[in-house]
Amino acid sequence: MRNLLLNTCFSAAIVLAAGAVNANEELIKMSQNPKDWVMPTGNYANHRYSQLKQITSDNAAKLQVAWTFSTGVLRGHEGGPLVIGNVMYVHGPFPNPVFALDLNGDGKILWKYEPKQDPNVIPVMCCDTVNRGLAYGDGKIFLYQADTTLVALDAKKGQVVWSAKNGDPSKGETGTSAPIVIKDKVFVGISGGEFAVRGSMTAYDIKTGRQVWRAYSIGSDSEMLIDPEKTTELGKPVGRDSSLKTWQGDQWKLGGSTTWGWYSYDPELNLVYYGSANPGTWNPSQRPGDNKWSMTIFARDVDAGTARWVYQMTPHDEWDYDGVNEMILVDQSIGGTPRKLLVHFDRNGFAYTLDRTNGELLVAEKYDAIVNWATKVDMDKSSQTYGRPILDPKYSTRREDVNVKGICPAALGTKDQQPAAFSPETGLFYVPTNHVCMDYEPFKVNYSAGQPYVGATLSMYPPTGESHMGNFIAWDARTGKIVWSNKEQFSVWSGALATAGNVVFYGTLEGYLKAVDAKTGKELYKFKTPSGIIGNVSTYEHSGKQYVAVLSGVGGWAGIGLAAGLTEPTAGGYASLRDYTSLGGQLTVFSLPGS
Amino acid sequence: MRNLLLNTCFSAAIVLAAGAVNANEELIKMSQNPKDWVMPTGNYANHRYSQLKQITSDNAAKLQVAWTFSTGVLRGHEGGPLVIGNVMYVHGPFPNPVFALDLNGDGKILWKYEPKQDPNVIPVMCCDTVNRGLAYGDGKIFLYQADTTLVALDAKKGQVVWSAKNGDPSKGETGTSAPIVIKDKVFVGISGGEFAVRGSMTAYDIKTGRQVWRAYSIGSDSEMLIDPEKTTELGKPVGRDSSLKTWQGDQWKLGGSTTWGWYSYDPELNLVYYGSANPGTWNPSQRPGDNKWSMTIFARDVDAGTARWVYQMTPHDEWDYDGVNEMILVDQSIGGTPRKLLVHFDRNGFAYTLDRTNGELLVAEKYDAIVNWATKVDMDKSSQTYGRPILDPKYSTRREDVNVKGICPAALGTKDQQPAAFSPETGLFYVPTNHVCMDYEPFKVNYSAGQPYVGATLSMYPPTGESHMGNFIAWDARTGKIVWSNKEQFSVWSGALATAGNVVFYGTLEGYLKAVDAKTGKELYKFKTPSGIIGNVSTYEHSGKQYVAVLSGVGGWAGIGLAAGLTEPTAGGYASLRDYTSLGGQLTVFSLPGS
Repeated sequence: MRNLLLNTCFSAAIVLAAGAVNANEELIKMSQNPKDWVMPTGNYANHRYSQLKQITSDNAAKLQVAWTFSTGVLRGHEGGPLVIGNVMYVHGPFPNPVFALDLNGDGKILWKYEPKQDPNVIPVMCCDTVNRGLAYGDGKIFLYQADTTLVALDAKKGQVVWSAKNGDPSKGETGTSAPIVIKDKVFVGISGGEFAVRGSMTAYDIKTGRQVWRAYSIGSDSEMLIDPEKTTELGKPVGRDSSLKTWQGDQWKLGGSTTWGWYSYDPELNLVYYGSANPGTWNPSQRPGDNKWSMTIFARDVDAGTARWVYQMTPHDEWDYDGVNEMILVDQSIGGTPRKLLVHFDRNGFAYTLDRTNGELLVAEKYDAIVNWATKVDMDKSSQTYGRPILDPKYSTRREDVNVKGICPAALGTKDQQPAAFSPETGLFYVPTNHVCMDYEPFKVNYSAGQPYVGATLSMYPPTGESHMGNFIAWDARTGKIVWSNKEQFSVWSGALATAGNVVFYGTLEGYLKAVDAKTGKELYKFKTPSGIIGNVSTYEHSGKQYVAVLSGVGGWAGIGLAAGLTEPTAGGYASLRDYTSLGGQLTVFSLPGS
Repeated sequence: MRNLLLNTCFSAAIVLAAGAVNANEELIKMSQNPKDWVMPTGNYANHRYSQLKQITSDNAAKLQVAWTFSTGVLRGHEGGPLVIGNVMYVHGPFPNPVFALDLNGDGKILWKYEPKQDPNVIPVMCCDTVNRGLAYGDGKIFLYQADTTLVALDAKKGQVVWSAKNGDPSKGETGTSAPIVIKDKVFVGISGGEFAVRGSMTAYDIKTGRQVWRAYSIGSDSEMLIDPEKTTELGKPVGRDSSLKTWQGDQWKLGGSTTWGWYSYDPELNLVYYGSANPGTWNPSQRPGDNKWSMTIFARDVDAGTARWVYQMTPHDEWDYDGVNEMILVDQSIGGTPRKLLVHFDRNGFAYTLDRTNGELLVAEKYDAIVNWATKVDMDKSSQTYGRPILDPKYSTRREDVNVKGICPAALGTKDQQPAAFSPETGLFYVPTNHVCMDYEPFKVNYSAGQPYVGATLSMYPPTGESHMGNFIAWDARTGKIVWSNKEQFSVWSGALATAGNVVFYGTLEGYLKAVDAKTGKELYKFKTPSGIIGNVSTYEHSGKQYVAVLSGVGGWAGIGLAAGLTEPTAGGYASLRDYTSLGGQLTVFSLPGS
């Protein structure tokens, strides 16, 4: 109950802070209306939570499929649809069709937009041709195409209002993430770390598409919009050239640190939060140093882009543990003290709880016991290595041409892009996870524009003595403990949804949509959708009825073997996915029986 | 009730006749077991009827989706799955994957077979990359690939037992139809009439794949396996060179008359029934004469292939009214006399009832009132034109470069390949129909191997003053009358299923699976599947529960605009399909709630 109250306070704070600005006001109101699902993350805080409670843990067993829709595209379908009033907006992977479906007209297609894109972008998409969804704001639907074109579509008619080119696919720059609309701006990151793309966050004017600011993840202070005196890490100013001095020579120019995950926003603090990805190349011997600010949580001022604080989780990454996973903003008490928190489940297997106002590190615990590359995160504030992981040298990959075995988690992390959900009812986080280890053999690689700049060979498999490759867990971020955990045969690559009905939803790579009890994890319902699910579950209300929607379409990194028609050993432990599901691209919508 | 008894008698007769032969015995038994769905047509008589009656007109409104499966292929999905025991066999369009799904294991994939085929076959497939299904017999699953390879797969393991090449895609010869297993043979026809392919029916040895006989639709008596003295039409021997003398010069060599529809079998008479397609070219001025035996029903001896009788429905076709639609074999009384009937709903808009023992014409009536190219079929046995359509010269297309307007039905006929169903309970036929007219402008065309040999430009649209393009009708073949008719917005391109529960099922191009009352046509249930339905509905029982299955995947001739990404005017009246559905390839399986 205390958590519920706190969440209400948090929402109220958002409303107050939003009074003065443009698209925000509308978006915050809409995200508070549980009938809509107006942003991929559910709300700015990335809760993926709905107050709808027609579907409860008592009746979820009676769920049935209400209607379905095919996107007309195969391969991995990440993300999920938006619902605004009587219209649902559905997106797909390359070539990135967008459909506006009439919820009053049995899913009739009001309009369809499909950009013309050069298919040569496909080979530079590292981890399938995915797209994680659309953004809405100011009467427009924003699509971030594979070729990095950000296009604003009239939400009513589907016509192009403006478009802006954010990157250059010939250099390996691609778009896979969902944009976010904040105030009078649309924000997009960039994908392509495996092609030495230098990560950046860019803000575009919502009315015109004009670039307002761009902040790189690595490089000079001015390009990073870092203020050496005011930008802090763990309470201390980062100082001058905080990035440049952690790289050898010009290696930072190929240093990756892309920004392809999810973005959160705290209206009261006026900060946008996101993480940067792995440093390039995957061969750590080629890039001595901490490689800042790869693998870093950024808190930036929305208007100017200036970094308020940063926190690097995996200095000098040796395992491809991108830091891009979502930041979930919650107000909870720790040790009796109410805190404004940021909770982040990192690829490296640690779940971090920070104070989002200043980046203070409060909790950092493993959310899967198999994590072995580091024993713990040093929480001793007086220590030289405060906030850094304590490494186990056995799993260091700074050994060129040596195949380092048994590293846990695998490169795709204990969690990848699949977003967790937070329920203010239970105060718990619901986290789709990977339960996978790897062998990692780095090798020397030379850069050539538009060519892979990876420098390591990997093989991924279930932990020794185990056969399951995923868990769906409930996590208490105040204590850093697992509350319950459900085994899944494969990685849970689908984003979770928590609801006020005490029901949590997620999908599986075999294609099941599952509903579980939020308090206990008990399975309440499952249904086999046409294809494996890597989409994120969402919910909405229409004509007095609660619906749950999810995209099927196996693929993504975990399903790339199946999606791209690769055979073993590339598919690794996921090779047997082909015994359970097949390529597809469908939306399945569920509801309780009766009108 | 009388019809029910007659149907029982018919089944008994089949059992008796089948005692001596091989694959037949097993297949007839299996087709009499309503738990299985062992051939695409339901049974040898092509009834598409099931004795299952757990789903009734009283409870069909409660149907829900039980499970789903994606084929991993887009474009038109014609045909439907087979069910044999605990295994379901699902096929797809080019590249023609075959999946064996474990009904005990929640649809787990037991095996998958996907042939390697030259994609150059796609441009010579006139009407989408469809495949109408698999055949089973002798422990093997038979797939007739797009490239005309007939492959026998071990039903348990999916391995290739043998394969045979039936045609040459470089000449436009393709495979789209479902094979049929009769006795110790597998039968396949050929597609490609629009590429001047000469139609034939070929029988292969079920054990080895060796060709046993081939009978052409046109040409010399010996190549057609026609006995000038014993093969009859309307009771009279056809005489010597019955085909050759109805063509000008060598035009018969390019004369089409392909055999891509459905095949039926009467074990007692030992006859296989099928129809031949349009004569080539579509420009009738280039091929004076009756063009025999295009547009013809063939009754052939299964063992030797010899034609017992023939009946040409549309001599000298001027409208592309292929005669390939299924022959439905029923025993009903006409005028108080029990008859062994063959009922056929032709593309030309007439529904024919014949005596299947000898080809006697009993009834020939329009099954859509808009049919205007002929006023009637001459039923006067004493007439010179007995059995021939009486043409309306206004709609003749023997006028090169003249655009003849308002011809009804359009080239795709009042019905195309989508098979009708017959219920012995009601004695009625349930017929998915097109309600479409056309403009037809013939032009001179020269032949070049592997190039289209069409010679006409068409435009298809709803009848004047109407907006709907399909009807789903109940037909009494004894009287030649429509009993009830339901309007559908688009052509009903999905095969029907009749059941003992007084429920008839069919799909729509928008994607609805519909259940209607067999006696009244009243709609009982509808569900929007992911994509438009051109597949055929089937039913089976597993673990005591009745399931209804259908493939979605818009395409086929009616959906070719959407499937091949064409724009108007090619898509004609079907262009607005894009407002309702999108490409896909999914199986949806329905059942009543509860275990």
